[in-house]
Amino acid sequence: MNGAESLVRTLVAEDVNICFTNPGTSEMHFVAALDRVAGMRCILGLFEGVVTGAADGYFRIAGKPAATLLHLGPGLGNGLANLHNAKKAGSGIVNIVGEHATYHITHDAPLTSDIAAVARPMSDWVKTSSSSMTLAADAAQAISVARSAPGKIATLIVPADNAWGPAESIAKAPPTPAKKPVSKEAVAAAVQAITGGGQCMLLLGGSAVRGRALELAGRIAAKTGCQLSTEFNNSRQERGAGRVNVQRLPYPVDLGLKVLSGVRQLILVGAKTPVAFFAYPGKPSVLINDSCRVTVLATVEDDIEGALEALAAELGALNVSPAQIAAAERPTAPAGALSPEGIAAVIGAHMPENCIVVDESITAGRGFAAATAGAPPHDWLGIMGGSIGFGLPNGVGAAVAAPDRKVIVLEGDGSGMYTVQALWTMARNALDVTVLVFANRSYQILRGELAGVGAGEPGRNATDMLTIDRPDLNWVALAKAQGVEAGRATNLEELAREVARGMASKGPYLIEIVM
Amino acid sequence: MNGAESLVRTLVAEDVNICFTNPGTSEMHFVAALDRVAGMRCILGLFEGVVTGAADGYFRIAGKPAATLLHLGPGLGNGLANLHNAKKAGSGIVNIVGEHATYHITHDAPLTSDIAAVARPMSDWVKTSSSSMTLAADAAQAISVARSAPGKIATLIVPADNAWGPAESIAKAPPTPAKKPVSKEAVAAAVQAITGGGQCMLLLGGSAVRGRALELAGRIAAKTGCQLSTEFNNSRQERGAGRVNVQRLPYPVDLGLKVLSGVRQLILVGAKTPVAFFAYPGKPSVLINDSCRVTVLATVEDDIEGALEALAAELGALNVSPAQIAAAERPTAPAGALSPEGIAAVIGAHMPENCIVVDESITAGRGFAAATAGAPPHDWLGIMGGSIGFGLPNGVGAAVAAPDRKVIVLEGDGSGMYTVQALWTMARNALDVTVLVFANRSYQILRGELAGVGAGEPGRNATDMLTIDRPDLNWVALAKAQGVEAGRATNLEELAREVARGMASKGPYLIEIVM
Repeated sequence: MNGAESLVRTLVAEDVNICFTNPGTSEMHFVAALDRVAGMRCILGLFEGVVTGAADGYFRIAGKPAATLLHLGPGLGNGLANLHNAKKAGSGIVNIVGEHATYHITHDAPLTSDIAAVARPMSDWVKTSSSSMTLAADAAQAISVARSAPGKIATLIVPADNAWGPAESIAKAPPTPAKKPVSKEAVAAAVQAITGGGQCMLLLGGSAVRGRALELAGRIAAKTGCQLSTEFNNSRQERGAGRVNVQRLPYPVDLGLKVLSGVRQLILVGAKTPVAFFAYPGKPSVLINDSCRVTVLATVEDDIEGALEALAAELGALNVSPAQIAAAERPTAPAGALSPEGIAAVIGAHMPENCIVVDESITAGRGFAAATAGAPPHDWLGIMGGSIGFGLPNGVGAAVAAPDRKVIVLEGDGSGMYTVQALWTMARNALDVTVLVFANRSYQILRGELAGVGAGEPGRNATDMLTIDRPDLNWVALAKAQGVEAGRATNLEELAREVARGMASKGPYLIEIVM
Repeated sequence: MNGAESLVRTLVAEDVNICFTNPGTSEMHFVAALDRVAGMRCILGLFEGVVTGAADGYFRIAGKPAATLLHLGPGLGNGLANLHNAKKAGSGIVNIVGEHATYHITHDAPLTSDIAAVARPMSDWVKTSSSSMTLAADAAQAISVARSAPGKIATLIVPADNAWGPAESIAKAPPTPAKKPVSKEAVAAAVQAITGGGQCMLLLGGSAVRGRALELAGRIAAKTGCQLSTEFNNSRQERGAGRVNVQRLPYPVDLGLKVLSGVRQLILVGAKTPVAFFAYPGKPSVLINDSCRVTVLATVEDDIEGALEALAAELGALNVSPAQIAAAERPTAPAGALSPEGIAAVIGAHMPENCIVVDESITAGRGFAAATAGAPPHDWLGIMGGSIGFGLPNGVGAAVAAPDRKVIVLEGDGSGMYTVQALWTMARNALDVTVLVFANRSYQILRGELAGVGAGEPGRNATDMLTIDRPDLNWVALAKAQGVEAGRATNLEELAREVARGMASKGPYLIEIVM
């Protein structure tokens, strides 16, 4: 057994059995080990942003880390943006990054770079393997880190000679640190905040928007009349009929300030104090008002469900029916010209039960919440780190994690282009993903942002930097060129037909919505 | 005038008048300034690897830096791989990376990351602007660094409030440090090496493969009988009829060892001691033998032409006719089935005078040198950092730098996919680029590498990681979807027809060569 094999066997033994890959020479022993070790499914991406984004989506749905296999510093560099998104989402990932053989690094061959330095900004843990004999133990440690709440980015750098050198055994991952229980004092403070008078909001983030935690939040709201909200984006929000329907904080600063203006007590449950996505001249960074008191019930590293359980118990809310339960109610698919409301209604009308929605719709999707709140139960995955190019790869990962569920990717045309290679991975693996591309031929959000930062109206030169027309991208052709069936919608009837096609398909399908 | 405007005006005043961009909110004041400042041409890329790779190609041809405009840490991350290639190529680039407003960073908004840490591994110089009033001076410093021999990566991080805050004036770039003259001792040592007996090789790199430096090397070879070689790749090699025809060192270690086996005196002229691209078990990292003495005449930071001038003078070679002048001689375009030799001949038969060849052909292109040596004079640009995804973006940059020259990009299908978005930028800007995609449906190089590192023959699982078939990519459709005309060649007659089409076109044209 060589080091690479001990590494792969350790991953498999620890149930890390999906590896999203884009390997090169320094990773060939890992690749070769795949022929000798059963139980590891490797999924190739044609660009590393696909690889890391897929690992993010996989964790969000599977609840356990995947591995990635990346080629040296530049390969890791290509994966950084979606590692950033994954880190902000609290997704656990075990990155395996090949390095030159230890004795080769000093010679400064063309691909030499400081891999650990590239890794650190987007990793929670970085280690360079020092020997083939200890590679399995390093991998086991990486797995343990990746599993830590809420999920961490562990990057293990593997010099080639440690991959091909001898190894004796696999290693067992150290116990994952348990989620921290919240203190009685924190619960008492939350009770005080919620019952002390003044408008109170429970701001939910992380796992607080799922399962029993979400239900408990609903019970607390029913009992106390407090408001419920989530952060602007969520790693995975459970929504739909029969579930507690929690609104997101809005993106625009002014709207955020308005929503939060009356709040006097803000209780953070896996969320952070709301801040503006960007700074704007003359506007505050922090969206709560000066008279609002903030109480931290639980961070994303804490036992959020336990914290809400304790809070509900203290408030006598355990047996209260949750507030804001969404009724089973779908919009009727409308006809006519494309409009934000019409598109939202078509989507809401077609979402199948238990589907997974990956939302990188940016401007186009801001109105989707209402039209989809009463759809059958589903998961909604948001872009946590704000780095576009997240949607298509996350769709890959989600579909790999849940082959029996329909994945719907809501994608901007601008953002979709960053990691357009993900379509090929969908085709190769026959992933059950329907992609809706909102083709407005521009970085639409930036038009608002340009005004928002006080830079006025764009002239000709500035407009060139905000539009992606001339030539228009043909998304149907981009999809078909990569083996993905596709269609186009220019009105709501066509959209309904196309969405129905996507829902009926068992493989990937892309719809270009010509806005 | 705000900081952003002082920045743009400083760039333009210093003749940095091309900016490859992929901006976001934090860069909107820079974008807005484009409407007020004449003389800056901004070229949008739909992915940051296109942006940084284009700046690399631009420098190689224009001989002066372009700017890039990138969005925060993740945007810079997406550009790192091609910055790595640019850094290894000695290309000068001024990266402008937007950052949150200084007071906003502490709030850890979604896009917050340690931008300087992301920048450092692939930059020669990194600075975060501290005030809108000094932003112009920082930019001037960055320009000076980028101009330093052979060309450096300067990354200036600009917090949004320094872009929108007040500024008073532009700044003048400090004088660029002159190329270091080589010492008399270095020249004397080279004379000793070349005349002292034993086979001698001048290994040329950097600017030694261009212009008068190349010619001087040819004269020295004619006078002394020394061998001439270049490194495996060159940033920009001048080749073709009437020029000194210098062979590249081969990529495979065994071939490299063989070529260098008889060399007893190695003189480095802008080159480094030859090392293997990767380490392989049981094979050396350094490709020269133990009895070979290495003499450094000049590094890439030195005055290479001056060094060769002095050496030629010492050797009495200044008026000798250069050795190895390539005769004007083209292959006849062959017919029949596609073969490496046949493809090479078709390319050699069609290359127009003064064209620029960007070579990311990886395995497919290893035999192109002989068939193109006698083509009309041209430049040949290699992938210096080894990180694939370099070719299409470099083609963009080269074409922007030299709108009157034909650019030919030789591209692997695997490598082309990393930055496939570059095709759109070619279309939008009507760039005169013909792209040949060698569609062998695999990472062909990795098959050899797998064996090379002692990992044997790939089985089914490993093969899945080395192939990019199932589904096959349709490159003609990928091109047309982005507005680039395209055709397909399945035999040499079709290839000749398609290459002729590309050469006749004044805009981008892509040829999928189905291997």
